[in-house]
Amino acid sequence: MQVKDFYKTLEDLGRMVEERQFSQARTLLLDENPVDIAELFEEMPENTLVLLFRLMPKETASEVFSHLDSDVQQRIVEGVTDKELATILDELFFDDTVDFIEEMPANLVKRVLKNTDPTTRRLINQVLKYPEDSAGSLMTLEFMELKKDETVAQAIVDIRRNSLEKETIETCFVTSATRVLEGTVTLQNILTSRDDTTIQEIVDKDIFSVGTTEDQSVVADLFKKYELLSMPVVDSENRLVGVITIDDVLDVIEEENSEDIYIMGAVTPSEDSYLKSSVFELAKHRILWLLVLMISASITGFIIRRFDEVLSSMVLLAAYIPMLMDTGGNAGSQSATMIIRGLALGEIKTRDAFKIIRKEFAISLLVGSVLAMVNLGKLLLLDRVSLMVAVTICISLFCTVIVAKICGGLLPILAEKCKVDPAIMASPLITTIVDAVSLTIYFVLATAILHIGG
Amino acid sequence: MQVKDFYKTLEDLGRMVEERQFSQARTLLLDENPVDIAELFEEMPENTLVLLFRLMPKETASEVFSHLDSDVQQRIVEGVTDKELATILDELFFDDTVDFIEEMPANLVKRVLKNTDPTTRRLINQVLKYPEDSAGSLMTLEFMELKKDETVAQAIVDIRRNSLEKETIETCFVTSATRVLEGTVTLQNILTSRDDTTIQEIVDKDIFSVGTTEDQSVVADLFKKYELLSMPVVDSENRLVGVITIDDVLDVIEEENSEDIYIMGAVTPSEDSYLKSSVFELAKHRILWLLVLMISASITGFIIRRFDEVLSSMVLLAAYIPMLMDTGGNAGSQSATMIIRGLALGEIKTRDAFKIIRKEFAISLLVGSVLAMVNLGKLLLLDRVSLMVAVTICISLFCTVIVAKICGGLLPILAEKCKVDPAIMASPLITTIVDAVSLTIYFVLATAILHIGG
Repeated sequence: MQVKDFYKTLEDLGRMVEERQFSQARTLLLDENPVDIAELFEEMPENTLVLLFRLMPKETASEVFSHLDSDVQQRIVEGVTDKELATILDELFFDDTVDFIEEMPANLVKRVLKNTDPTTRRLINQVLKYPEDSAGSLMTLEFMELKKDETVAQAIVDIRRNSLEKETIETCFVTSATRVLEGTVTLQNILTSRDDTTIQEIVDKDIFSVGTTEDQSVVADLFKKYELLSMPVVDSENRLVGVITIDDVLDVIEEENSEDIYIMGAVTPSEDSYLKSSVFELAKHRILWLLVLMISASITGFIIRRFDEVLSSMVLLAAYIPMLMDTGGNAGSQSATMIIRGLALGEIKTRDAFKIIRKEFAISLLVGSVLAMVNLGKLLLLDRVSLMVAVTICISLFCTVIVAKICGGLLPILAEKCKVDPAIMASPLITTIVDAVSLTIYFVLATAILHIGG
Repeated sequence: MQVKDFYKTLEDLGRMVEERQFSQARTLLLDENPVDIAELFEEMPENTLVLLFRLMPKETASEVFSHLDSDVQQRIVEGVTDKELATILDELFFDDTVDFIEEMPANLVKRVLKNTDPTTRRLINQVLKYPEDSAGSLMTLEFMELKKDETVAQAIVDIRRNSLEKETIETCFVTSATRVLEGTVTLQNILTSRDDTTIQEIVDKDIFSVGTTEDQSVVADLFKKYELLSMPVVDSENRLVGVITIDDVLDVIEEENSEDIYIMGAVTPSEDSYLKSSVFELAKHRILWLLVLMISASITGFIIRRFDEVLSSMVLLAAYIPMLMDTGGNAGSQSATMIIRGLALGEIKTRDAFKIIRKEFAISLLVGSVLAMVNLGKLLLLDRVSLMVAVTICISLFCTVIVAKICGGLLPILAEKCKVDPAIMASPLITTIVDAVSLTIYFVLATAILHIGG
């Protein structure tokens, strides 16, 4: 849906509700995809929203509901009757129900649970016990389970009878009589086997599974590395309790990427979206890093004060401090960015540390020379400083780039080794370190080459 | 597989090949998952690699082959006979074949094409014509196609006969006699319908499809937004030509994330992994940004030179330039990071510009005050500078944070509006802008408050 259409539809719906043209509003609404309807609902005032929600047939209503943000879900739950609530819940996929309940305040959770059937309620309570970012909280209970001693013919009957409530039937999960996971069998394999074959004969035992408490990032890494579409979740006795499907892993991958990007930008990660977070929350996620970095930047101030004699005898030198600091910071964060991303994608391992140092050193020689040469030309031709000053600045620049690139390449690896998130070593921290080093080089060189101060 | 096991297995395999214990090597190798075998192969010398590859049964060999990096694939193709090559190609999924051929040098492409059957060759040539990052180059040709006038019974026979060669059968694609795409039908729906129902009666016509030349990032966004598992690709006459499955979209999403992260770290994005890229290539991807940023950092130098009288009368002021610059840069890049990520995830739209300015302004008041207060304390108690100098520095800091956060919030939105990748507005560029602004504020305030220079 285009942006223009979006606002036009939103406006039309508002007008129709106001003029009580409900059947027209219903037609217009149902013409949209449920995901788009959810997006429209996010922008509506509460009374219009609840009214329109109640106009939709229950299947669509439930699907739209699963795509809504939790604050809008809450407003709807508060606006509908118990009977309507029970109908929505009945149509929702189990994992969507759990996602929704996890975000509701306690009083609404009570009301929601009251309106689900006892079996579902028991299962919900069980799943809610798993830690938030665990495999258990990610899994669905609507998967196709087959017993290992069934025949293909029986399995097909089973599948035809039950498949509509399942999230996926492409892969079926095979268990023993005591529900211990035996392996998987694809629907392709079932459909192409003879009717009297037992599932046991065609089961693939060489599969991946995870425990309920496994961290979701480990799950996502397995999906990516082994190109999985679904993966069984088992309890401590290897009994099958649920299945994670790739669509839920997609969200985890985006979450992990966001987390890395936020940390690299010196923001404490949070799962809430920017527009929905309060000013206070957003400030809270930023202030700590800013304070830490501001205080560590004092080291650079300390270095400058130590060399204030050098600076007083030649104030001109101060004019090149920002360029040196920025270029060093940028050179370092380029290296850090590539290594952090490589580590996240599994393309780089900590065992590659030596290769990285060698590579970054070579790159920094190349890049540093080019930058120093360009800068030398600019200093002599445009700024018209003396040759010795220009040489001091350019050698400092060259050394800074080398130090920056090696720090940038090495610190993320070091963090990974120490089981710290390598993303922390991104630009802000690298910048602070490189600043201190580059200023020291600059002033020491100035003292030596220009015979001033010290 | 653990890192330790990895090296042990690698070593054992090398030793077994050396001692010509081939059957032992084969057993050890086949005990691993094809993805892990591929990883082992990446680390092996060429002769061991080709030898072990030829020991594997053809199904495993093909699967391992599809997981290898293109340089290793090339070494294998060069090391096997035409007959072996034909066997590998025969077992490969069509989209893996295309991926592999796209990376091969021309002479090998010829040899590869010679060893595929004529139909496959024709299809490969057709798909190779699509632009590299297009929907056409991403799609598979191994999908389940049903005709709209088939009955469910016929469809089930079709599926049982052909499903083994298909990448997915969960969703079947329905076409007319002239191959025009009519819609999709899930296997669940087929299996739960009566045998004499025609496909036409149960087809879902309300689906998404893309043209062959559509950009892969658009495809990935559709998959994410509408939680799709597969999507048909059509030609200009709406005839079905292929299907994109979610596993291939996962790679695109990771690619897009990498691209954003690289641009935010001031590295020109590239698809090659760090370790496989040459020093020269890596330097090439970094030098341009470094040059641009170095030259734009000259503006800050220019500002300092303009105010050199202020600085000569109080060299102490120079000591706080790095802290001001760094804190401004960090404050700005925090905001830019959040907005860039929000835009990439679709949580923030350009229409939210006004909300963002208001929010960033409020945040910057809060964060700026805290930073200024902490800094004031530090300046007076630790650095023991005079009150007026401390006040000058803290007011500059406060103003810098405000400017930085508003620039950081607004520039990515501006870029998006101008159809430029917002990631470009991340820390390095923000830093340069904020540096110039913060230094000007600092010197102007110093002149006014401290009555020096100017």
